[in-house]
Amino acid sequence: MSVDVKQWITAIAPLDEKAMEIAALHVDQLTKPQGSLGKLEQLAIQLAGMTGELHPDLSTRAVMIFAADHGVCEEGVSAYPQDVTAQMVMNFLNGGAAINVLSRQNQAEIICVDIGIKSELQHTQLYTRKIRKGTRNLAKEPAMTREEAEKAVLTGIEIANEHAKRGIRMFATGEMGIGNTTASAALFSAFSGLDPVRTTGRGTGVDNGGVRRKQEVIRSAIHLHEPNPADVWDVLHKLGGLEIAGLTGLMLGAAANRCPVVIDGFISSVAAYVAIQLTPAVKPYLIASHLSAETGHRLLLEEMGLSPMLHLDMRLGEGTGAVLCFPLVDAACRLMKEMATFERAGVSREEAPR
Amino acid sequence: MSVDVKQWITAIAPLDEKAMEIAALHVDQLTKPQGSLGKLEQLAIQLAGMTGELHPDLSTRAVMIFAADHGVCEEGVSAYPQDVTAQMVMNFLNGGAAINVLSRQNQAEIICVDIGIKSELQHTQLYTRKIRKGTRNLAKEPAMTREEAEKAVLTGIEIANEHAKRGIRMFATGEMGIGNTTASAALFSAFSGLDPVRTTGRGTGVDNGGVRRKQEVIRSAIHLHEPNPADVWDVLHKLGGLEIAGLTGLMLGAAANRCPVVIDGFISSVAAYVAIQLTPAVKPYLIASHLSAETGHRLLLEEMGLSPMLHLDMRLGEGTGAVLCFPLVDAACRLMKEMATFERAGVSREEAPR
Repeated sequence: MSVDVKQWITAIAPLDEKAMEIAALHVDQLTKPQGSLGKLEQLAIQLAGMTGELHPDLSTRAVMIFAADHGVCEEGVSAYPQDVTAQMVMNFLNGGAAINVLSRQNQAEIICVDIGIKSELQHTQLYTRKIRKGTRNLAKEPAMTREEAEKAVLTGIEIANEHAKRGIRMFATGEMGIGNTTASAALFSAFSGLDPVRTTGRGTGVDNGGVRRKQEVIRSAIHLHEPNPADVWDVLHKLGGLEIAGLTGLMLGAAANRCPVVIDGFISSVAAYVAIQLTPAVKPYLIASHLSAETGHRLLLEEMGLSPMLHLDMRLGEGTGAVLCFPLVDAACRLMKEMATFERAGVSREEAPR
Repeated sequence: MSVDVKQWITAIAPLDEKAMEIAALHVDQLTKPQGSLGKLEQLAIQLAGMTGELHPDLSTRAVMIFAADHGVCEEGVSAYPQDVTAQMVMNFLNGGAAINVLSRQNQAEIICVDIGIKSELQHTQLYTRKIRKGTRNLAKEPAMTREEAEKAVLTGIEIANEHAKRGIRMFATGEMGIGNTTASAALFSAFSGLDPVRTTGRGTGVDNGGVRRKQEVIRSAIHLHEPNPADVWDVLHKLGGLEIAGLTGLMLGAAANRCPVVIDGFISSVAAYVAIQLTPAVKPYLIASHLSAETGHRLLLEEMGLSPMLHLDMRLGEGTGAVLCFPLVDAACRLMKEMATFERAGVSREEAPR
C-alpha cells in the first residue's frame, strides 16, 4: 500500500487504558445497580478510552456522506435509475432528505463528498474529490485500479483529518450510490467466503428476481476476478465502490485523530470491515448504530463483534441510522457527568450477595 | 370492576383510520425508497392514528414514575434493602438519578407519584396518592385487596387525565419499587401459565441463588393463591404491586385522552399486559421502547406483539429506556414534517420491477 496510507494507519493509537479505568470506577459510583445501564456504560468507558477524557465534549459532530456511482448498474441491480445518486446529493445539499431532517434534530453538520459521481455536480457546499466518474462494471472488469482504490482511501483519511483539525469531535458515516449494496455484498462475500445468498439483500427495494440477479452478478464477478481475501487492496479495487473506499479512509483518519465514528448500516459496515482488515487498531473507535433490514448486515456486525443499539428495520443509508444514534452517545456522556453518586445522594448500596 | 374504571375503559377510542390513511400516503411521497424508514414510518402513521393529526406536537411530555414498596421483600428477593425505594425517590426529586439526566436531555417533565411507599415522604414535587404503605407479602397473603387494586388503577387513570388536561401530550412510564421484578414476574407467570424460570430475572442484580429463590417464591405464591387468569382483578390484587396497578391505570387514562404512551422495561410492560387484559383498545396507544436485559421481557413483548426499538441491555427501570426513545418519536414526527417529496426535490421514483 502507499506510504501515505501506511503512515496514517500506524498513527492510530490504542485506547487510553488509564482513562477507561477512571471511567469504569466512576460508573460504579453512580446511583444505579452495577451494569444496569448496559451498553451505555460500556460506551461511556469506550469514549473515555478514545478521547482520553472522562467527560469528552462531542457536541461538534458531522455526518460524512460519500457519494459515487457504480458501473455495475448496467446489470440492472437497482430499483432506481443511476441518476438518482446525483439527484439525492442535490437533495442533501438543498436540505430535503431524511439525513437533513435527522442532522438538524441531532445538531450534526452534513459534509457531502463527491468521490465519484458520474455526472458533473456544482454546489458551494459540495466537496468535490472525484477519483473517477463512477466505478467500472465489476461484472466485466475491476471496478477500480489499485491506485484508484488507494487514492479513494487516502481521500477519506484526508477529509477526516481536515474536519478533525477544524474541531469536529465525532463522525457519523453516510453514503449515497445507486448500486452500492451490490458492491458491498460482493466485498463481504469475497472477504468472508460466504455465498452471496447470505450477503445480498433488496437494497432500495428490488424484488425476488432482482435479488437473484444481484447474487448471480456477485457470484460470477468473484469467479472472474478471483480476489485474494488476504490482500485487502486486491479485493477492494476489484469489487469496491469509491464511496466505500472513501468511508474506509474516513474511519482510519478519524481514529488517527482519536475521534469516535458512528457507523451506519450495511454499506458503512462493509467499509468498516475493510478498515479493520487494514488495521484492527481502528476497531475500538467504531460504534455500531443500527441493525439494518438489509440481508447480511447482522452477520457482518457479528463478524466484527459489534452490537447495534437501534433495531428500526431501516434500510435507507445516507447516515440516517448513525445520526439517530447521537442522542444515545450524548446520553452516555451526560449520565457520566450529571448522575449523583451513592454517597452524595445518600442511597444505600447493594447488600452482600445472599 | 368499579363503575369508574369501566367508564374510562369504554372511553378509549379506536385509532383514527382516516388520519392514518393520509399519513401513509404522505410517507410514500417522501424522497426515500418505500418502507426504508422501517419502524419510524409505522410509528409516524400510528401517531397520526392516536392523535388524529398528521403533525402532532408531542413536545410537552412527561415520564410518570410510580413508586411503591413490596411486602415480598421479606423473602430476600432483592439485592438492595427496601429503604432504597424511598431513597431513590428522593434522588429523583433532587435531580440526581439516571432518569433526571435523561429527562433533562429529552425535554421531559418528571412526575413522581407515591402510590405506596412504606415510609412517609414529604416533598413539594411529590404527588402523594398512597393507597397503603407497601403491599402485603404475596408469599403469605394477597398483596392487596381487590378494592385496593381497583383504587390503584383508578389513581393511575386520574393522574394521566389530570396531566393530559393540563397539556401533556405524550407519556413515558417509569417505576421505582425494590422487589417489583418479583411481583412482575409473578403476574406474568399467573396470566401466561409460563413457569417462573422463563419470567424471572436478576432484577437489580441478585445472584443465581437469588434468582432461584425468586422463582420458588413465585411458584409457591401461585400455588397458594390460585389466581384465575380469566379474572384480571383476581390476579392483580393477589400478586401485583401498587405501582404496577398505577401504571396500568396511567396507560388507560392516557389512551382515553388520545395520548401516546412509551412503555419502559419489564415492570412497565407487565403493567401494559394487565391493561391489555382489561381492554385491547389500549394497545394501539402503546409504544415499546427498549428490550431490557431482564429475563422474561423479550417473551412478554412478543406476547403483546410489540417490537422494541432500542437494544441497550439496560435493566434500570425509572422510565430510562422509555425516555431514551423520545428522540426516535421526535424523529418520526420531524421526518413527516420536513422531508421533501419526490416531486418537490426533482428526484426520480423507482422503476417498474424487472
